Amino acid sequence: MQKDRTLTTPIKVEVVAIGTELTSGQKLDTNSQWLSQMMTSLGYHVAFHTTIADDFDDNVEAMARAVQRAQIILVTGGLGPTQDDLTRDVLAKIGDVPLALHQPSLDHILAMFAKRNRVCPERNHVQAMMPIGAEPIANEHGTAPGIWFEVAGVPIICMPGVPSEMKPMFELLVKPKLLARFGQGHAIVFRVINTFGEGESAIEAKLGDLIKRGRVPEVGITASQATISLRIKGEGETPELAWLATEPDAKFICQTLGDLVYGEGDEQLHQVVLKLLLEQKKTVSVAESCTGGLLGKLLTDEGGSSAAFQGGVIAYHNVIKYELLGVSNEILNTHGAVSQECAAAMATGCRARFKTDFALSITGIAGPGGGSDEKPVGLVYVALADETGVTVGQYNWPADRSAVRSRSAKTALNMLRRKLLASG
Amino acid sequence: MQKDRTLTTPIKVEVVAIGTELTSGQKLDTNSQWLSQMMTSLGYHVAFHTTIADDFDDNVEAMARAVQRAQIILVTGGLGPTQDDLTRDVLAKIGDVPLALHQPSLDHILAMFAKRNRVCPERNHVQAMMPIGAEPIANEHGTAPGIWFEVAGVPIICMPGVPSEMKPMFELLVKPKLLARFGQGHAIVFRVINTFGEGESAIEAKLGDLIKRGRVPEVGITASQATISLRIKGEGETPELAWLATEPDAKFICQTLGDLVYGEGDEQLHQVVLKLLLEQKKTVSVAESCTGGLLGKLLTDEGGSSAAFQGGVIAYHNVIKYELLGVSNEILNTHGAVSQECAAAMATGCRARFKTDFALSITGIAGPGGGSDEKPVGLVYVALADETGVTVGQYNWPADRSAVRSRSAKTALNMLRRKLLASG
Repeated sequence: MQKDRTLTTPIKVEVVAIGTELTSGQKLDTNSQWLSQMMTSLGYHVAFHTTIADDFDDNVEAMARAVQRAQIILVTGGLGPTQDDLTRDVLAKIGDVPLALHQPSLDHILAMFAKRNRVCPERNHVQAMMPIGAEPIANEHGTAPGIWFEVAGVPIICMPGVPSEMKPMFELLVKPKLLARFGQGHAIVFRVINTFGEGESAIEAKLGDLIKRGRVPEVGITASQATISLRIKGEGETPELAWLATEPDAKFICQTLGDLVYGEGDEQLHQVVLKLLLEQKKTVSVAESCTGGLLGKLLTDEGGSSAAFQGGVIAYHNVIKYELLGVSNEILNTHGAVSQECAAAMATGCRARFKTDFALSITGIAGPGGGSDEKPVGLVYVALADETGVTVGQYNWPADRSAVRSRSAKTALNMLRRKLLASG
Repeated sequence: MQKDRTLTTPIKVEVVAIGTELTSGQKLDTNSQWLSQMMTSLGYHVAFHTTIADDFDDNVEAMARAVQRAQIILVTGGLGPTQDDLTRDVLAKIGDVPLALHQPSLDHILAMFAKRNRVCPERNHVQAMMPIGAEPIANEHGTAPGIWFEVAGVPIICMPGVPSEMKPMFELLVKPKLLARFGQGHAIVFRVINTFGEGESAIEAKLGDLIKRGRVPEVGITASQATISLRIKGEGETPELAWLATEPDAKFICQTLGDLVYGEGDEQLHQVVLKLLLEQKKTVSVAESCTGGLLGKLLTDEGGSSAAFQGGVIAYHNVIKYELLGVSNEILNTHGAVSQECAAAMATGCRARFKTDFALSITGIAGPGGGSDEKPVGLVYVALADETGVTVGQYNWPADRSAVRSRSAKTALNMLRRKLLASG
């Protein structure tokens, strides 16, 4: 019955973030956005975000207000062990109850410190204090437990401000409890399709009038670090139906853009490449100059990568290119380290050295110094060697050092992805 | 006289952002952070951020609330021409006045469209409607004028949500008017001192009652990716005097924490290490297992790194540790790849191979798989080799794969930093 109610009148949510570092503009709050995405996808209506400085009276005022205008309150921050961290006291005040020690939480905190071979300072004990009537929420990734506390029947759900602690706590413990209590509302999903290899306007042009205001479903386009993403907004009575509503557009996008599309949602290029490598039981090694280890870092970001990734050489200096990758002095002297020939020799040398199915190499001028008229900053060669030979691409990135390195590494990954798709 | 008032009691500010695209999590609000930085630097106290979905009643409620608890309200968004854009109506409601056409604003809107060779749609005319008593704020970079409207003596200053329109409007038109009306508060600066090597509560304990509420200057502490930062809030009549006010605490922190302090402000550990290497004309190479290239990536993040960084080996598989780094099969078979002995052999082998002053090595179990009772996930060895020998540290990180890798790389950098400080 509650479930039906939420379909016509969505549950109203307020997301609260606490910390002077946020209100003073020193830090950007990203937790509220993430929690809003989660709650929206469950069909709840996030009506307000509130951010409050570390001031007791202002916290009490804002939290009491939230209890009046929202049915669920999600709070991040203010649970640390320091005197700035007021959330426990604020809850006790608006609930008009004292704080009491929650022994299992203290045991967890002590165990977390013991696991790190460290003594728990006295002040951390305060993290196990709870307003009477509150339920602690276990924190598998940090010391401070979350707190589920109700005032006038409105749950105030307090989670740590650290995203790596907050996100799993929400997903694993808070979300199921919310669904059991409030049911699932009218579902809105955003289906994101990611592409790499063409610019934003080229992608938009290929898709005709798909990205037009007022069209249903609504399709948006965004660019981030040379990845162009299409975002389809689907609505329906259940998440499944909402997802189904995105299906025709998703198909059209994938058919029209072909292998420019590399994945959906949060999936990243390096994850797709690793998946393909593992599926096809292929191995890879890397030879990196200007990216200095970034490509290897990306290929090992996920667990299980050791079945595909063998290793690499960071050949920052020419002598390393010669000694460890077998790039000839002739190539280095005639064409230079930033050349098609050197990229090719690095990739083939790397593949021979590491005995892998594929080897990727990157050599270029990341800047800001080191450029010349002939070889300007942003000139990068990326090569892929396999049993059939070696392919080299030349790129002239207009961006700064960090973007040049990121784009070069992604381009190498994309080269390997397209090769794996063609052979797989 | 007004100025004196602001010196003792800072003006309280609420920053409001309007739009369902923000509360639903589709878009990240960066305007509020920017405006908070601006207002804080003028000496005003931003006590609240509020974000409201495109709902009339909720807007009225939140805005009326803001009038009660703040002395200045800065609003972004909700000024567009569509039915979603409610800010004009909300102001009229809480001020209890009707809307009226502001002819010069309409003329400006028509001229902006003419300049782009486009006909102004009828619906854009609404952007020239103002609550009676409001003062329009010219928008040089878009169609919608801003609105300065007062309720109970509290200015509600509404600006467009598009940052490229909002920022110049604030800088050129809003800021001077605020300063004329409220005076300049104390100049406030935040001086940030960064440390690595101890946890948040250990650092706090060392600093005695420095981080005590109500103390002046206020000192805050934050943790981000194992970096613990102290933030001293300096106040004074000028920015220079405000900075000077942080000096005694900054000195005390540096003296008390010694070489746990690695830098100030935005400066990061890898930048400090590179600077020390370049100053001392020393070279470094890396041998990475579980970090897969991350350490090399960090050491090459900055331009000019090639004068210090020679290269490295990503020795993900044991055969690479043996072949390229000379780790003996005896070590690999007896102690395993994740051992003090292997870390030491990797570092010394790397240093010999690359002929560098220093070599750093990292070997460990980043997880989520691959752990055992004897060698659990999070067990990492970090070693530093130099002409005098090799030092190895053992760490048991409680965190996830990404954090294990990040902390391990930072720990290696920190080991080198402390060595460079001792020898330099």
